[in-house]
Amino acid sequence: MSSQIDTPEKLIESLAMAGRAAQRMLARASDAKKAGALRAAASAIREDTSAILEANAEDVSAGEANGLSGAMLDRLKLDGDRLEAIAVAIENVASLPDPVGEEIDRSQAPAGMTLVRRRIPIGLIGIIYESRPNVTADAAALCLRSGNAALLRGGSEAVHSNRALHAAFARGVESAGLPADSIQLLPTQDRAAVGAMLKAAGLIDMIVPRGGKGLVARVQADARVPVLAHLDGICHTYIHAAADPAMAKDIAINAKMRRTGICGAMETLLVDAAFPAAGDVLSAIADAGCELRGNSRAQAIDDRVKPASAEDWDTEYLDAVLSVAVVDGLDDAMEHIAAHSSGHTDAIVTGDDAAAERFLAEVDSAIVMHNASSQFADGGEFGLGAEIGIATGRLHARGPVALEGLTTYKWQVLGQGQARS
Amino acid sequence: MSSQIDTPEKLIESLAMAGRAAQRMLARASDAKKAGALRAAASAIREDTSAILEANAEDVSAGEANGLSGAMLDRLKLDGDRLEAIAVAIENVASLPDPVGEEIDRSQAPAGMTLVRRRIPIGLIGIIYESRPNVTADAAALCLRSGNAALLRGGSEAVHSNRALHAAFARGVESAGLPADSIQLLPTQDRAAVGAMLKAAGLIDMIVPRGGKGLVARVQADARVPVLAHLDGICHTYIHAAADPAMAKDIAINAKMRRTGICGAMETLLVDAAFPAAGDVLSAIADAGCELRGNSRAQAIDDRVKPASAEDWDTEYLDAVLSVAVVDGLDDAMEHIAAHSSGHTDAIVTGDDAAAERFLAEVDSAIVMHNASSQFADGGEFGLGAEIGIATGRLHARGPVALEGLTTYKWQVLGQGQARS
Repeated sequence: MSSQIDTPEKLIESLAMAGRAAQRMLARASDAKKAGALRAAASAIREDTSAILEANAEDVSAGEANGLSGAMLDRLKLDGDRLEAIAVAIENVASLPDPVGEEIDRSQAPAGMTLVRRRIPIGLIGIIYESRPNVTADAAALCLRSGNAALLRGGSEAVHSNRALHAAFARGVESAGLPADSIQLLPTQDRAAVGAMLKAAGLIDMIVPRGGKGLVARVQADARVPVLAHLDGICHTYIHAAADPAMAKDIAINAKMRRTGICGAMETLLVDAAFPAAGDVLSAIADAGCELRGNSRAQAIDDRVKPASAEDWDTEYLDAVLSVAVVDGLDDAMEHIAAHSSGHTDAIVTGDDAAAERFLAEVDSAIVMHNASSQFADGGEFGLGAEIGIATGRLHARGPVALEGLTTYKWQVLGQGQARS
Repeated sequence: MSSQIDTPEKLIESLAMAGRAAQRMLARASDAKKAGALRAAASAIREDTSAILEANAEDVSAGEANGLSGAMLDRLKLDGDRLEAIAVAIENVASLPDPVGEEIDRSQAPAGMTLVRRRIPIGLIGIIYESRPNVTADAAALCLRSGNAALLRGGSEAVHSNRALHAAFARGVESAGLPADSIQLLPTQDRAAVGAMLKAAGLIDMIVPRGGKGLVARVQADARVPVLAHLDGICHTYIHAAADPAMAKDIAINAKMRRTGICGAMETLLVDAAFPAAGDVLSAIADAGCELRGNSRAQAIDDRVKPASAEDWDTEYLDAVLSVAVVDGLDDAMEHIAAHSSGHTDAIVTGDDAAAERFLAEVDSAIVMHNASSQFADGGEFGLGAEIGIATGRLHARGPVALEGLTTYKWQVLGQGQARS
């Protein structure tokens, strides 16, 4: 970094210009070249195993000294297996089909020209993330695969791990003949630099925050650059009167308890008053170790259901806690969801196809499910091969976003000399 | 309006809540119902012809008294023919296919669920426009056709015309059984209310500014709501060495002179030094009444070419003025375009397919053309049936945007009881 870069804004401008210059080369790079660069990045990470693990040990010691929670330390910690998983994940992204150049559609203009819409990279993507160092490699791989440059800003807790991972990744990219600036890591942990990233409209094309609600909320509040994100995952499962009791129980337990800390975990169960096996389902969830908080009708079903407060219906517990409401039919359920869902994932369990169809059509969330666990809300589970994040905004891309969501398109107009009359 | 609405923010919140409530009904309305509402709106406008023309006469008198330019008065003025054209345009939108519910793609998840991506409306669209009252009807029709509610804010010069048009439109919509609040017109010309619209993230889903550069620049600078727009149309035409001379001349004259005031008009002509008929082309453009401003090599071709200043290459003239540069080959041309294009529409004229292919792939504009006039940059000319605007941003929709660009999508997951392992 030159000593002339004396403000966060100038730093970000300088990094963004370098990233944009690299991106112009990435935009033209062939499928094989980009895939090769990712495979080289994976190899470089394997070569640097000991350096990366040493850097990570430094972060972990500092985290222990600074009193990081056990969960945060676990997210931060790398070992040989986790590093190998990071390298394999990069190789998996390398084997995904290249979205760039794909023809979206083709038509004929009234004046005779052929019109082709074709996918192109978005440009420079900013990634702002917290303690998981694997995001450094994951996000870099997805951006590069789709022809985008990335400007990464990881959390202070993982600063040494991120630098070591980034150095290996960039060396691999460069060894394959693509610019090292394709993937840049912010050289400072100064929070003002994050602020400057968020304001860098026209320099950074999109920002993806990866982390807890505090981070996402700050990014959404302050950004002038478009943000791809979800804030909350307040996911509902509605057990309709015509649900198969065994299926309803399996799905409810899985949706809540498989992993309670992920954004697709169910936070509220809506049970139809006409569903005959509500007692079984609630009892099984409580037996699985989940605290239940419900409306009075839910409390009447199982005495382990504690009273829910008004806030419970709008709370993402990310824990073994579940809000439960007994509702009167599909409309009542959909009204509850419209009032309390965060628009992430909402599911119905029913054997009644007409009810399912209405739910799938009328519930306005990024993902709506019929007879499946909301824990499937994930790019890998959707067959996308990976994900940069899950979006609940209305524009561009929604739900799990992978390579396609990291592209935009251009119109190519193929004429034979047409002038407009 | 209730007297409790005492701040611009509260006014916008109240209008947005009413619009969002109406939109939930629109989202479920059938194709036939939405088309019927538009036909009823067209009929209501025809019924109200004399009221609308009277209101318009009031605006025109006020405009004359306030010294509006002839061009502005012409944009403002309605007559029987123009009003009939507005009604016909609404009927044309009614006959476009309904984008809502369209299946984008369908796949199978690894765990066996069927995944369907299906188009849905975006929600509430804010339209901020200037003196053309026809935008009131055009924008309202496109929003309603795609299941979106609209909040319209027209220019003060057209306030009576807009109110009369809006009243007729809303009456038609209501007579067809859809909520009148589907299409709302801001009841005040207070500029603070525009500011409140721009900040209403979460209440208004997207804003489309329609008007001059000043309006678009203000909206882009101040908005916290996503904006679909283009600021400039600095469009280039590059005549390659292997261009057919007659075709090059026709396209250049058409691209510049057919209508100089539209965003797709050519503003800069790049002529390859190896193109043999540069003199003919420049002479024909000058003969057509266009002022030419060029680099020294362009001045050497025709003595009517005046020297171009540095600003000329970044100027959208919207007039019979053209910048001309002689360039050395495709790379030189693309470098000029990368430095000066506004990313709207850029064209190459050539008989060399390899050169065309590189240009179409590497020029990073929303629209790239081969052997066609940039004046075709228009939703109607692209066969979209209409357009809400042309976008040069990187996300969501680019180029001419019509009904598809007014939709987003949801994921529908159709399971058979799957729980995630």
